Formats: sequence, structure tokens, C-alpha cells
Amino acid sequence: MLETAELGRTLDKAQYKEALPALRRTLLDLQFQLRDTDRTIILILEGLDNATKGEVANVLNDWLDTRGVEFHAFGPKSDEELERPRFWRYWRALPGRGRIGIFHSSWYTGTLVQYALGQIDDDTFDRHMQRISRFERMLAHDGAVFVKLWLHRSEKHQKTYLKQLDHEPNARWMVSKLDHTLHASYHRLVAGAERAMRHTDHREAPWTAIEAADHRYRNLMAGEHLRAALAGESLVDVSKVHREHHHTDGTILDKLDLDQKLSKKDYRQAIDEKLLTLNKLSWQAYHAGVSLSLVFEGWDAAGKGGAIRRIMRGIDARVAQVIQIAAPNDEERAHHYLWRFWRHVPRAGRVTIYDRSWYGRVLVERVEGLTPEHRWHEAYAEINDFEEQQVEHGVVVLKFWLHIDPETQLRRFNKRLETSYKHYKLTNEDWRNRDKWPTYAEAVEEMISRTSTDIAPWHLIAANDKRYTRIRVLEIVCEALKARLHDQAHKERHKHKSALNGDE
Amino acid sequence: MLETAELGRTLDKAQYKEALPALRRTLLDLQFQLRDTDRTIILILEGLDNATKGEVANVLNDWLDTRGVEFHAFGPKSDEELERPRFWRYWRALPGRGRIGIFHSSWYTGTLVQYALGQIDDDTFDRHMQRISRFERMLAHDGAVFVKLWLHRSEKHQKTYLKQLDHEPNARWMVSKLDHTLHASYHRLVAGAERAMRHTDHREAPWTAIEAADHRYRNLMAGEHLRAALAGESLVDVSKVHREHHHTDGTILDKLDLDQKLSKKDYRQAIDEKLLTLNKLSWQAYHAGVSLSLVFEGWDAAGKGGAIRRIMRGIDARVAQVIQIAAPNDEERAHHYLWRFWRHVPRAGRVTIYDRSWYGRVLVERVEGLTPEHRWHEAYAEINDFEEQQVEHGVVVLKFWLHIDPETQLRRFNKRLETSYKHYKLTNEDWRNRDKWPTYAEAVEEMISRTSTDIAPWHLIAANDKRYTRIRVLEIVCEALKARLHDQAHKERHKHKSALNGDE
Repeated sequence: MLETAELGRTLDKAQYKEALPALRRTLLDLQFQLRDTDRTIILILEGLDNATKGEVANVLNDWLDTRGVEFHAFGPKSDEELERPRFWRYWRALPGRGRIGIFHSSWYTGTLVQYALGQIDDDTFDRHMQRISRFERMLAHDGAVFVKLWLHRSEKHQKTYLKQLDHEPNARWMVSKLDHTLHASYHRLVAGAERAMRHTDHREAPWTAIEAADHRYRNLMAGEHLRAALAGESLVDVSKVHREHHHTDGTILDKLDLDQKLSKKDYRQAIDEKLLTLNKLSWQAYHAGVSLSLVFEGWDAAGKGGAIRRIMRGIDARVAQVIQIAAPNDEERAHHYLWRFWRHVPRAGRVTIYDRSWYGRVLVERVEGLTPEHRWHEAYAEINDFEEQQVEHGVVVLKFWLHIDPETQLRRFNKRLETSYKHYKLTNEDWRNRDKWPTYAEAVEEMISRTSTDIAPWHLIAANDKRYTRIRVLEIVCEALKARLHDQAHKERHKHKSALNGDE
Repeated sequence: MLETAELGRTLDKAQYKEALPALRRTLLDLQFQLRDTDRTIILILEGLDNATKGEVANVLNDWLDTRGVEFHAFGPKSDEELERPRFWRYWRALPGRGRIGIFHSSWYTGTLVQYALGQIDDDTFDRHMQRISRFERMLAHDGAVFVKLWLHRSEKHQKTYLKQLDHEPNARWMVSKLDHTLHASYHRLVAGAERAMRHTDHREAPWTAIEAADHRYRNLMAGEHLRAALAGESLVDVSKVHREHHHTDGTILDKLDLDQKLSKKDYRQAIDEKLLTLNKLSWQAYHAGVSLSLVFEGWDAAGKGGAIRRIMRGIDARVAQVIQIAAPNDEERAHHYLWRFWRHVPRAGRVTIYDRSWYGRVLVERVEGLTPEHRWHEAYAEINDFEEQQVEHGVVVLKFWLHIDPETQLRRFNKRLETSYKHYKLTNEDWRNRDKWPTYAEAVEEMISRTSTDIAPWHLIAANDKRYTRIRVLEIVCEALKARLHDQAHKERHKHKSALNGDE
């Protein structure tokens, strides 16, 4: 999820100065309107360290009418707080209707820190998240509007940042010992943040990760998210704002180096070797009971079919199936949209390859307006849960987004027109989709930022060159299988036993 | 929760025969209408044994057009099922739109059995319930209408029932070894059922406990609940149906023996002793850090104030506070309805007594239409969660419903009119409430059945006689404190340590 917040986005001084006056005016206007409503804004700042959260809180304080804002932070518990249930301190701090509460630390903080430091395990963590989920939903039903921001930096950036603060006499006090300790557990802290987002990213209280390395970009984005919440804007509106401020630096897709290529010679050499490896690994996986779910999404003509066919050459057809996802049939339409995918969850040791997938819910259904926003927004959480259930059961879930630029697509479309036996592959719909490229790009960006989890990450593949695409995909599949089989070797006996007992 | 399903409700043959034709006709009509909708009915039968569930399933099968119904049960997992994530088998079995699925066992069964047999602990149980909650909500948002029935018998009845079946050659096959094993763990099975209900009783998928001892009553109620779901009726409508069929046997409140009395002499003797005991216990609790939340609800003029004053005589005013709950003030209205109660959660060792409470949400706010149904219905789950958080923290939560009959109320109202200094205690509102007695009674019945949990049960107190009321309440408070202090004595040192470390 957080790779979309490691792109090196910045705003220069001039851009910042230009955007600021309008934003500040709007914030004040909207805050004034808020006063007479039943709504409460709850803005949560979480992130890697206290200094960054503090800076953002200060900036927001500057921009708002302080009479309607409350700031809260939760340090070690007071005697009073220790003597009452855990949530008492949070209830005490909840702002009233018409007001804005800015939480410099929140009900997430303690659990995230404990998780990062290895003081609590997954089950306890999940239990806390479950309680938080209920708490937030309950407040949302009562009129609370949530803005939950994770202020993010890559590990490298964070290290530099802390070092920098340490060396500035006027800033050193902002860095606590805990910040350094947490940085030493960077990966676990970030894994915890992702886990928290997976369990608590609901329509009623969505998470957003903001790249925090550049203070202007970060401040403006925090302000924009607060503005969107005050204005009651939908996620799609917010995406648009995102895009406006992104276009200087591009999205995660734009960052992908599409020039990656492979010569014919290199390809020939690589493909046979990769297929042999895959074949061996897939049989090993079969015997070890490790199953594989491969999800292919990408632009029209990005080469999904070709990549899938190459994989199938490496795997025995008896243990693999390719599921082509088109518009649902009658029986599928009669069920929940996930039903058709649950049907095909692979048996132990088998492989299911999805040519398009459950992500249609947040791509085509979103862009074409086939599903209302509140339904497809909830789908991010539903999909994360679906994939989590597969991964918990031991399925290796790999997701590929095959990315091309519009020019390459046009070239391939035209080629299909020229080649008579490829005519059938090109429909009017393909041209229509092409016109909606920017809208799709927004949906893809959001899909990646909400569903690329540490347990089932998205692999973004540069697909302008088909040879490169195919080899890269084969590589990733082989690597993932190899890694899992390695882990599995140790656990195999144990697994076998518990499978015989059933898990319920 | 399940005490409302142990009242000995029956229907005689004539009543059953009279009600049946209309119900069956309506069921078929509604089922026919269902076919062309986007809705799916998911009827879950859970309970103490397979035979009862099977009987109900068979009856419903008789009453419905079988072409639109599917029956599902989940025994030991097949090879196919073992090799896939736990929920795969349930997804496979989901009925399509326009159809009815009757689940003779369900996604609850395995977890309930494991819990009853002590094979899984609370955390794992809760984790399963969390997943079920998400699953059901997701389906509900997609058009599924849930009817979740717990077919209940008291321990004694269940024992007789199983014995009876064992002795009938034609019925013996219906009783499995597991049924007997489960009966040996009756209390744990019922505790698991309550725990499941607490965590999964949502507006989108509510639970209902049905008394199953009488087969006619039980069949008719199951049919009525299915009918209500098909008709899209609200909870209030369902309560009405409930009441119609109950009135022959009365509700849990009607079962209460209101004639319980105490002579003046006995009272005088008892009160001093009880107050002394309470005083001693409350100081012990203070030093042990055990806190007490006492909730008083009841009819107007049932004697809540008097009972509370007696308790206060036993407890030092420095460690106790009485919170009178009237209409919320401005600040309270500006927050979630639970906020005002969270404020008063007692510190360690302290006592908070609520004269009326958060239950106003599902009593006055429901009856007077101050809160829409979907909000007060969700409050049952919210309140159970609130109380669970207190209990988890170590607070002893006791809830009293002071029950009188309408005649006693009238007598007391008139007395207040006669006694000049008691005039102020009687308002026009009291008379208005009195007119709504049956509607309130319904709300009270439902409140008890959804929020009387094993961790925070409702105590129904016969309150026609004030002396009896006061002594009985004092007794219950003393017993509960004594029991907790006894447990606490063992854990004290450990508790103290973990309190110092904080729990997050």
C-alpha cells in the first residue's frame, strides 16, 4: 500500500504559494459552515515519528479558526486513564458536533508502537483493530467524518530526516528516543500500518497515505484532504485533487520505466530456462500442496493473454486453469460479485490464473458507473479480506498490472486492424476505454494504493516490450514459488497434520 | 440473552391449526414475489442439537415451494474443502437472488462446537466471529436478508428431549454421539452462543432466540420470522407478531412473580445487616480496585430512586456517584449518545449508579420515535460492546429492571397526587408513558433478549413491594461484589503489575 507514498513527490515554493491562499480561504469558509451542522471532523495523524505529525498539526492549526478546533495527543496513561477501560481516554477527547478534532496521536498509536516493538502478536493486534473498526463505524453513523492520514517516508528518507533533526540544535528536541527505536523497527512498523489499514479502511473511515518527505507537498495534501472531508466530497473528487497535485511528479504508474526491453536473443535464452524452472517448481508445489493464484490486470492490449500463455507452457495443464473474466453470466449475476471468484480458488497444489479478476469491481465498474461509489469503495476492504483468507490458507497470491503507454496501445490496436485474424480482438469498447484513459489511471492508482498489501502486493510490469513483460512475469512467479517452497519445507509436516484435523 | 427462550411457551393444537393456513399461504405468496427481486433469504438454524434443527428445516420445506429453496448442512470437510480456505464451502452454498437458502448448519456451527468442547479460546472464537460479521454484512449490502435462529431449550428440557429421542426406536438415529457430548458441555455451548450473538447481532443480520421445547410454537415462530424477512418487515413488526403468539404464555416480564413481599419486621432485620455487609464489601472493593457500574431501569414509579438511596446508605459517598439520566444537555447532544455514559465510567474501586441509562436508546428513544429504527437497532450491538469493554477492564456491571404491574403504578401515581411534597415527581409525561405500556413492554422484552449477556446480565426485580425490591437489589449487589472479590484475591498481584505497565 505504501509504495504509492514513496515516489519522491514535491512541490516547489512557487506552486505552494500559488495554491495556498485559495485552500486557506476555502478551509475557513467550510469550517464556518460546519459549525451549524450535525457533523464532526475527526482528523487522525499517524506516521513514522512525532515530529512530522506535529508539523502537520501546527500547519493545520495555522490555517483554521482555532476556536472550532481541538488538538489531542495521547502519551503515557494518567492514573485516571489507567483505572478505566482503554477507550475511555478517546471518548473523553471526542469533539462535539460542528467541531474539528485533530489527533496528533490516536487510538491506533499505542497498538502500532507495541506491534512494531514486537510486544503484541497478530491476534491481539487484529482484536484491537476490530474494536477500532466498531468504534469508528459507530461514530461515523452518528455524523463523524474521518480523515485518517498516514504520513509516510521510505526507510532511507526517514533515516536522513531523523539524522537531520538530530543535527539541528533547534529541532533536536522534537526527536524522541522512541522515534529512533521505532526507526530501527521500520519494517515492522510499516507492516503494522499496512495491517491496520487493511482492517480499518472502510468507506465510513478511509485511510490515505501521504508522502511526507517534502513538507510543502505533505502540508498541502493534508489540507486538501481536510477540505474534501469538510466539503463532503466523495473519493472520486478526492482522486481528482490528488491528480492535480500529482501531475508535476506523476503517479506510481508514471514512475515505471517503460523503456525496459529485452533483445530477441536474450529472450530466447531466458524463456526456455524460465519455463523449465517454472515446470520444476510447479510440480514441487503440487506435491507440497502449495497453490497459486495469479491475477492479471492491465490496459487493453497490454499483453495479458501472451504472458498467461507463456506461463501455461511451463505448467502442466492438469494442475492449472485459466479463468477469463468477462461480463458475469446469469448465475454469477445472481450472486455477490466475489462469488464467481471464490468458486475458482485453487485446490491445494493447483494454479488458478485470472485473466482480469475481482478488481473489475474497482476498475470497470467504478469508471463505467456500473456500481455506486459506496459499494465499490467498500470493495477495497472486501478484496483485502478475500485475499487475506487465501494467504492465511497458504495460497500464494500474485497480482500483476501490465502497464503500457497510450502510444503503444494505439500502435497495437492499429496492428490488430491490419492483421485479419486479430480483428476479433479489437472491439468498439476498446476504443471507448481508450478515451477514458485518465479516469482509468486514477482508478488504477487508487486500487494499488488500497490493495497492494504486504501479503498480496501488486507487481507493476513495464509492458511496452512484450518480451520483457513475459520474462519479468515468469521471474516473479518463480521467485515467489521458490521462496514459499523454501518456507514450506520447514513447516510441511506440521501443516499436513493440521490439514487432516481440519481448521475448524 | 437466552433466558427469554426458557419461559415454557407452548401452542395447543387448536391454536396451531388455526394459525397455519394463513401463514402457509402468505409464505408461498411472498416466496413467489421474491423470485423477481434482487434479494436472497439466508435462514440459519443453530441450536443445541441436530434433531431440532432438522425438524424445523423439514417443516419449512413442507411449507415452501421447494423449487426456490436450497438446504445446506456442513459436516466434516471433504478433501475438496480441506484444500481451500475455510469459507470456500460457504460461498459455494450461497443461494442466488430470488431464492431461499436454509442452513441446517452454518458458518457458526464448527466454531460453536469447538468452543463448547474447549478446543479454541476466546480470542480465536472472536476472530472467527469477526470474519463472520464481515461476511454477513457484505452479503447484506448485496441484498441478502438474514434470519438467524437459535433454537433453544433449558438444560433440563434438553436433557429430557435427548432421553426421549433415545427411547424412541424411530427417532434414535436422529441423535448423534456429538449431541450427547455437547449436552455434557451445555453451559459452555450456551455461553458460546451468547458470545456469538453479542458479536454478530447486527441490524443487517439480527439473531433471534426461539424457545424450542414445544414443537408447534417453535415451528410457527420459525415460519413467522421467515415470513417477516420475506415481507421486509422491520424489527418492530416482528415484535408485534411475537407478542401475538406470546400472549397465551406471556413474556419474560409476565413470568416474574410480582407477589413477592417482605414484612416490615423482616425488612428491618434485613436492611441493617445488608447495609453493613455492603459497606464492608465496598471498602474491600475500593482497596482491591474493583469498580461497580449499577444500572437502574424500570417503569415510572417502580421505585428506582428508593432502591438507589438505600444502596447509597451502604456506600461511602466519597467513592460513589449517582448519575441521573434525563434528556441530554447541549454538550451531550453534541456527541454520540454513549459519550455521556463513557464520561462516568467509574475509576478503579469506585461505584457509579445510573438512574436510567444508555438503555434509553432502545426504550424511550425507540418508543417515542426519537431515533430511527436502523440506529436504535444497531445500539444493541453498541451497548453490548460498551459493557464488554467495561467488564474486560474488570468493572462489575449489574443491570436491574424494576418491574411492577399497571395497577401498582396507578396506585402510586395517585398517591403522589395526594401527597403535596411528592407532586413534583409526577408529570404529564408519566401519564403519557403509561398509555404506551404495551409498546414499552415490547421494547423491554427485546432489550432483555438482546442485551442480557452472561458478562452483564439483566436482573428482573419484582417491585410491587418496595421492601422486597430494596432488599433483593442489595442482596444481588453484595453477592456480585463478594464473588468478584473472591476471584480478585487470586489475581490481585498480577493485576497490579499489568496496570502499572498499562494495557497498551
